[in-house]
Amino acid sequence: MDKQYHCRYIYCFSRLGLLREHARQMFTSPSQVLLGSNHTEHVDAASYTDSSDDETSPRDKQQKNSKGNGDFCIKNIKQADFGRREIEIAEQEMPALMALRKRAQGEKPLAGAKVVGCTHITAQTASTCESAVLMETLTALGAQCRWAACNIYSTQNEVAAALAEGGFSVFAWKGESEDDFWWCIDRCVNLEGWQPNMILDDGGDLTHWIYKKYPNMFKKIKGIVEESVTGVHRLYQLSKAGKLCVPAMNVNDSVTKQKFDNLYCCRESILDGLKRTTDVMFGGKQVMVCGYGEVGKGCCAALKAMGSIVYVTEIDPICALQACMDGFRLVKLNEVIRQVDIVITCTGNKNVVVREYLDRMKNGCIVCNMGHSNTEIDVASLRTPELTWERVRSQVDHVIWPDGKRIVLLAEGRLLNLSCSTVPTFVLSITATTQALALIELYNAPEGRYKQDVYLLPKKMDEYVASLHLPTFDAHLTELSDEQAKYLGLNKNGPFKPNYYR
Amino acid sequence: MDKQYHCRYIYCFSRLGLLREHARQMFTSPSQVLLGSNHTEHVDAASYTDSSDDETSPRDKQQKNSKGNGDFCIKNIKQADFGRREIEIAEQEMPALMALRKRAQGEKPLAGAKVVGCTHITAQTASTCESAVLMETLTALGAQCRWAACNIYSTQNEVAAALAEGGFSVFAWKGESEDDFWWCIDRCVNLEGWQPNMILDDGGDLTHWIYKKYPNMFKKIKGIVEESVTGVHRLYQLSKAGKLCVPAMNVNDSVTKQKFDNLYCCRESILDGLKRTTDVMFGGKQVMVCGYGEVGKGCCAALKAMGSIVYVTEIDPICALQACMDGFRLVKLNEVIRQVDIVITCTGNKNVVVREYLDRMKNGCIVCNMGHSNTEIDVASLRTPELTWERVRSQVDHVIWPDGKRIVLLAEGRLLNLSCSTVPTFVLSITATTQALALIELYNAPEGRYKQDVYLLPKKMDEYVASLHLPTFDAHLTELSDEQAKYLGLNKNGPFKPNYYR
Amino acid sequence: MDKQYHCRYIYCFSRLGLLREHARQMFTSPSQVLLGSNHTEHVDAASYTDSSDDETSPRDKQQKNSKGNGDFCIKNIKQADFGRREIEIAEQEMPALMALRKRAQGEKPLAGAKVVGCTHITAQTASTCESAVLMETLTALGAQCRWAACNIYSTQNEVAAALAEGGFSVFAWKGESEDDFWWCIDRCVNLEGWQPNMILDDGGDLTHWIYKKYPNMFKKIKGIVEESVTGVHRLYQLSKAGKLCVPAMNVNDSVTKQKFDNLYCCRESILDGLKRTTDVMFGGKQVMVCGYGEVGKGCCAALKAMGSIVYVTEIDPICALQACMDGFRLVKLNEVIRQVDIVITCTGNKNVVVREYLDRMKNGCIVCNMGHSNTEIDVASLRTPELTWERVRSQVDHVIWPDGKRIVLLAEGRLLNLSCSTVPTFVLSITATTQALALIELYNAPEGRYKQDVYLLPKKMDEYVASLHLPTFDAHLTELSDEQAKYLGLNKNGPFKPNYYR
Amino acid sequence: MDKQYHCRYIYCFSRLGLLREHARQMFTSPSQVLLGSNHTEHVDAASYTDSSDDETSPRDKQQKNSKGNGDFCIKNIKQADFGRREIEIAEQEMPALMALRKRAQGEKPLAGAKVVGCTHITAQTASTCESAVLMETLTALGAQCRWAACNIYSTQNEVAAALAEGGFSVFAWKGESEDDFWWCIDRCVNLEGWQPNMILDDGGDLTHWIYKKYPNMFKKIKGIVEESVTGVHRLYQLSKAGKLCVPAMNVNDSVTKQKFDNLYCCRESILDGLKRTTDVMFGGKQVMVCGYGEVGKGCCAALKAMGSIVYVTEIDPICALQACMDGFRLVKLNEVIRQVDIVITCTGNKNVVVREYLDRMKNGCIVCNMGHSNTEIDVASLRTPELTWERVRSQVDHVIWPDGKRIVLLAEGRLLNLSCSTVPTFVLSITATTQALALIELYNAPEGRYKQDVYLLPKKMDEYVASLHLPTFDAHLTELSDEQAKYLGLNKNGPFKPNYYR
Repeated sequence: MDKQYHCRYIYCFSRLGLLREHARQMFTSPSQVLLGSNHTEHVDAASYTDSSDDETSPRDKQQKNSKGNGDFCIKNIKQADFGRREIEIAEQEMPALMALRKRAQGEKPLAGAKVVGCTHITAQTASTCESAVLMETLTALGAQCRWAACNIYSTQNEVAAALAEGGFSVFAWKGESEDDFWWCIDRCVNLEGWQPNMILDDGGDLTHWIYKKYPNMFKKIKGIVEESVTGVHRLYQLSKAGKLCVPAMNVNDSVTKQKFDNLYCCRESILDGLKRTTDVMFGGKQVMVCGYGEVGKGCCAALKAMGSIVYVTEIDPICALQACMDGFRLVKLNEVIRQVDIVITCTGNKNVVVREYLDRMKNGCIVCNMGHSNTEIDVASLRTPELTWERVRSQVDHVIWPDGKRIVLLAEGRLLNLSCSTVPTFVLSITATTQALALIELYNAPEGRYKQDVYLLPKKMDEYVASLHLPTFDAHLTELSDEQAKYLGLNKNGPFKPNYYR
Repeated sequence: MDKQYHCRYIYCFSRLGLLREHARQMFTSPSQVLLGSNHTEHVDAASYTDSSDDETSPRDKQQKNSKGNGDFCIKNIKQADFGRREIEIAEQEMPALMALRKRAQGEKPLAGAKVVGCTHITAQTASTCESAVLMETLTALGAQCRWAACNIYSTQNEVAAALAEGGFSVFAWKGESEDDFWWCIDRCVNLEGWQPNMILDDGGDLTHWIYKKYPNMFKKIKGIVEESVTGVHRLYQLSKAGKLCVPAMNVNDSVTKQKFDNLYCCRESILDGLKRTTDVMFGGKQVMVCGYGEVGKGCCAALKAMGSIVYVTEIDPICALQACMDGFRLVKLNEVIRQVDIVITCTGNKNVVVREYLDRMKNGCIVCNMGHSNTEIDVASLRTPELTWERVRSQVDHVIWPDGKRIVLLAEGRLLNLSCSTVPTFVLSITATTQALALIELYNAPEGRYKQDVYLLPKKMDEYVASLHLPTFDAHLTELSDEQAKYLGLNKNGPFKPNYYR
Repeated sequence: MDKQYHCRYIYCFSRLGLLREHARQMFTSPSQVLLGSNHTEHVDAASYTDSSDDETSPRDKQQKNSKGNGDFCIKNIKQADFGRREIEIAEQEMPALMALRKRAQGEKPLAGAKVVGCTHITAQTASTCESAVLMETLTALGAQCRWAACNIYSTQNEVAAALAEGGFSVFAWKGESEDDFWWCIDRCVNLEGWQPNMILDDGGDLTHWIYKKYPNMFKKIKGIVEESVTGVHRLYQLSKAGKLCVPAMNVNDSVTKQKFDNLYCCRESILDGLKRTTDVMFGGKQVMVCGYGEVGKGCCAALKAMGSIVYVTEIDPICALQACMDGFRLVKLNEVIRQVDIVITCTGNKNVVVREYLDRMKNGCIVCNMGHSNTEIDVASLRTPELTWERVRSQVDHVIWPDGKRIVLLAEGRLLNLSCSTVPTFVLSITATTQALALIELYNAPEGRYKQDVYLLPKKMDEYVASLHLPTFDAHLTELSDEQAKYLGLNKNGPFKPNYYR
Repeated sequence: MDKQYHCRYIYCFSRLGLLREHARQMFTSPSQVLLGSNHTEHVDAASYTDSSDDETSPRDKQQKNSKGNGDFCIKNIKQADFGRREIEIAEQEMPALMALRKRAQGEKPLAGAKVVGCTHITAQTASTCESAVLMETLTALGAQCRWAACNIYSTQNEVAAALAEGGFSVFAWKGESEDDFWWCIDRCVNLEGWQPNMILDDGGDLTHWIYKKYPNMFKKIKGIVEESVTGVHRLYQLSKAGKLCVPAMNVNDSVTKQKFDNLYCCRESILDGLKRTTDVMFGGKQVMVCGYGEVGKGCCAALKAMGSIVYVTEIDPICALQACMDGFRLVKLNEVIRQVDIVITCTGNKNVVVREYLDRMKNGCIVCNMGHSNTEIDVASLRTPELTWERVRSQVDHVIWPDGKRIVLLAEGRLLNLSCSTVPTFVLSITATTQALALIELYNAPEGRYKQDVYLLPKKMDEYVASLHLPTFDAHLTELSDEQAKYLGLNKNGPFKPNYYR
């Protein structure tokens, strides 16, 4: 069982989960202490808002919103208007959450829920304010919320201000110290007269804190909803050790989320990431894609469509046979390494592209990673004296061999689509909706449905997430007639597939 | 669990399984008695060999092969040479079985196995002799075999003769009576000094016969390998009723087989079936595909690639969202029924295209079924006095409305790809290899691994089937290094994915 | 200029034109005398109707239609009803001609035209009666017509009967002798009181006959419309020799016709032809396509879409670069000949696949020709004693090397899509419409617009042919506003492109 | 003929030519005076290098390169090293020019040529130094060159410095005044003892200057090579007016260049442009593409491949029929305007998307232009008081209706791929190679081959350009045997197609 679980963990990782995971590593969050990570690299601060030169720590300020409420800690309540506008634009791009709000106007499926949350209070360019829209949706569904940021760098101060102005107890600002980080989490959890009964976590830090500081609190907690690969990993470890004391929902591995985070998102972001960094023309290029899982499938499909000639490597014969049937030559890396123009790793494995291969690539070969963390390309092996590194633009290095050969290394081997492209709002919307439904499910589940274990989102809820996104495409679902439902042995409202169906 | 099972049964059906199922129905096999079917239609006999005008029943003949062995019952032993050549050609097209033979030359994984088999001893045009190659492979692996045909019409007499000449105890000829059918099965099972220990069945008739006549025989039987949807269905029923007394392997639902029978096979056969029957030009045609499961995905991909404009209907929001992301308009049938040129059903449901829709189709609209049996199109509703049927060529009817409108109905709503196209040998090869491996697995499994239940092929075996087919494509699998295997927590030889991974 | 012309002739040949050309060769028409061909092979007579056992030559019969008219010579006037139904079905599939009839109901653009025609009076399965519908359309437009068949085998007697019953002077039957052939042509031309003023020819035999026998007749002839490659070739030769005495319209090379005959038609027929003959699975197959003109582009696009890995050979660097940009590896044949599963020639060249390559192909390799006549594959080189030919089904030969290697040769190297698939009616409709418009143009052209030379259809007419086919696809053209037309310097009704635009 | 010409001019415009045209307009070049343009917008200066704060005009400086040569006028000779490195990197990306240099090492096809050039001495990100590499190639081929910039903003000073250091007489710097611009051109032309015999122009300003100031100079000029749409337009006007006194080569309309500038370049840049500006997810989006010429074909193919549902409008029935066969619904804009998510214009027409349509678009609809200049979308109609414009990021405006509806307008209706994406180096390489070959052809043409008219590049040269780019793709051309060449009536070295073949 151990291996099986581990297997699942490796192969069914969520793309977006990984993005966040990676962001976590990049942002030097306190998680690193727990994870033993020693990443110290920062993203370019300029890409995040810092609309105030005020040096005073938010913890030292006394702020109140326009209604006199001061139960929050943010950078500057005066930025609320700007933040509100950002949220409003984001609402337009997250129709499923808005639909959820509307449908829930009568009933309040989260009435009585007291949610502590720890997620990004963020502003990715063009995909703003996911957490803000989620938080306000939960409230509309009846929940009370207290919120901290799961990352010390990613908070958009204006958005936090807007939430505070709207009455939310938010504790987050851009550029928290590690001490600030835990202080914020503590403020969410620890308040006279506040006993949370639901946890929404992204990375496991909030859950960790409660385990460590307030273990008794779990007595009244109905469940944990966790989104990240790391957080899910920790939960499975707790479960295996028999220490998980409430049900937990792994939303990272829901079908809808997986397909969108991996196949559909990567199909677009591989092109975007390569173009933004290198302006390469895809037509006629020979491309090596290592790994034919969902991410690899997306990359291959996109590049083939753009006129590239794509080769695939695989270790799993089933995926290998799929690659064949989809029209790709299945090769070992060393068979084509001298001739390809682009190498893309999507294996979830380590040391897939090692120095030996890098030495044999042709001049100008582009090397990048769409897969698991930054281990797939052995970048460390390129940091030797005889090779010269030349940063030619942001996220693009030329590594130059003594004979003048240049390899174009993108994002230093980190995830290309995190570093060099954007995640479409549509994908974020699916994630946030899944989180909201997981909360509703756990909160309302009858006694005994969920034990102290880690669960996947029930198929029916997964189908519901999908259904909420269909109006975006003006897509019209067909309904079963009674006779047909009976014939198929199905409920007319689903679930339409068994839980294990992918 | 009942519903879950049923669900699985409906949705995870195997295309090829269905083909055979359907062939079963079409060929008026004795199974109909059990199934309560009242199909009486025969396929055109001319498409099957009947190289002898000899009217004597094989049961009344005394034949011996050149070595003096007479333990068989076939049409005419003199046809052996021709049959042998057919088998030799087929061997070229089933490289995986041949590879299996070769690898097993040293060890004999089926040494001691006594297999009774009941499958097609068939000759599909261009995909000859699957069972013959399978049977000889099992023998090469150490097994003793006795064999009957699972269908009274599908035996190719020459192939049966070649097997008899080669020393196999074969009991089958083209055009058996129902009594002959059961007699042949009985001859396979019931022989002084013969106690079979493995069953290889296709349709469940052999299993049924042993249950009915020789229930004690199960004491020594190690397992059943069943290929067909119907047979698998019966096994699950036995299991549910607590009456299954040996382990059974459901090879119909293995991943490799499913993908090939459905997605990849249908991607090609939809085009082939439509062309052979109607010569329609695909470019610019508006096509309605009902259902976006694996079969629907294959049909849609092929038609889109040929320049058709494809609309999709779905009941499951997850598949619906996939259709959207793959670039198809998701509609209800009534939204586009007046404008489409072709309607294809692939739902596994019944009454998807009913008279109301047929009435509204435009003149010349082609209607066909790629899905589950012949219930998807309500063909019965077209058999009314005001409509004229005109058979314009084999498998093609014009149904003519009073105003002159013609609907082009293919194969009377039965499966298009069974009726009007062929199944590629490659797909048959995957099935046969899967059967062989399932026998090996069940026969060699340590005590207690399998209980009296129905099992799917273990992932590792499924991967092995796939790996045996890679050389056909000159495809080279990458092997994990020790370090990588450790990192992933995997055995270097697989399985590479958890059992439930699809 | 000679070379230029020849160039054009080679590269801009029309697929359908070639089909007919090839049919001509296969059908042993009298043209062979002129062409010096020595083909003697016949197509299987069973594929053409022969609904009468009457041995009397039509020339010896006295038949009248129901109105007492006897100015025709056909097999059997009693078959008219069946033929009429065939024509009516065909009318449904040739909407453009029907639209032309309707639009011309007021004006009669061919009033006064006296057309002698020599085309196929044919019945291809599913694409019946092109010529009949064309003939009746010309009549509806005001023309008088006399008609002969351009091929001694291809006449469908029932259709000819229906035309005769309808009052047409038709001289054609299935199975004419060469003497009959010329006699029929003569009867069309040579009649007391009949002076034709337009010629519609397919192959040049009619034109040849008039040149030879009635040269004076050209004084009143306004023009020739010629469809076939061969006929067009002859006209250009006459023109070059200064012997062309009337304007001639080359409809073979019109843009619309070219694109449909080649790119779009071949995109579908390559799959159809391969499937019908070999049932090969396309997914994962390695395919060599020789030539990347329109035909090659169509083949490559289709096979790539079906999951094949396609290699291309080219001699022209521009087409070669297009192949690269479209995602195909450009190779020389000898680089991949050992590894490919299918070889397809589409070059218009000779000896592209020679014995040396055939010797090196792998066992089971399929070899076929989509290009120019039967010269591309050096089939003659395979007729040597050490190789065994085995006909495995119609149009499919196994050529077997001494070591047992088999090459699967299709249609003995003749055109695959003529021999083994069908031409969609839609393509035939475009051809017939183009012929009708060419007649109208030549007949109505003001004095001096056309000299004694060979012309392409004016762009505007070509556009009109296309526009007549748009309703089939429910396609709605946008019209220019006055302001836009002025801005572009175009007439609102076209032509929208210069004549040389392709 | 006038109309025909105009037609050609409209429809066969070169994408890249247009880009430059547009750049011309954007950069407020002196051409505006001639063209009557009143564009005053500047591109963000930050995107171009300005590595010196030195305010002194280059015209007032005395600079010499390291060899003591001072016949140039640039910003700062000290920047030469940096510029040289840029040129060296660019050389790697322009293999065809490098190949041309190598092949010409023996012969010097431009020996004696004295070329005055006026092109961009530019640095597009990632596609640096096209003109520099071209200039050095011409010199390697034997020519003497004097060069000015065709645009007052686009010069990269470092590159100009490197050229000056290398001995080139370059007269260009970033930020020239209009007076500077003409002064620089004059310095190229007017030098004691210098009589140019070839002109390489991009926009026609250099040609215009010589016509105006030194008309006698044309006596010794062998020809003009012109790249831009505008420049070509002027040449045709001169020709029509009988004032063209030397042969001119229109390289804008060569086949290779056209295909790459339009079809292949746009297939990639439409995705890139949309992603960089809006991060839109393409999957499932409904897209309206206006116009199905080469640009439209490229856009449609790319978006279809990414899972968008694409509608097409056309005025030309032939292109319309192609759209149908390629699988796109052909509609009028008003049929789908309410439902589409993205509208892209590629018509070459004006007022294709007018206010009426903009009013009916749905909230969030993205509107952009890939076609001819900025007239296709009637942007002016959006500058009315009731609409609010909000610049949300560079090149992206939200236009907000009173009811809150937002239209996302990209690049204010200017060319998306100029404004919001990059042109791949590969495309630039094709252009530069074509220019070099055109110079060689005109310079070496025997007396009388070219008259005082505007010519297209001979097919053979066009094929040669293509062939020089094949090695980039490791593509191997097949050569005709003598026998085959004879059979086809072709020279083994080409041309392989007639001049008019596209």
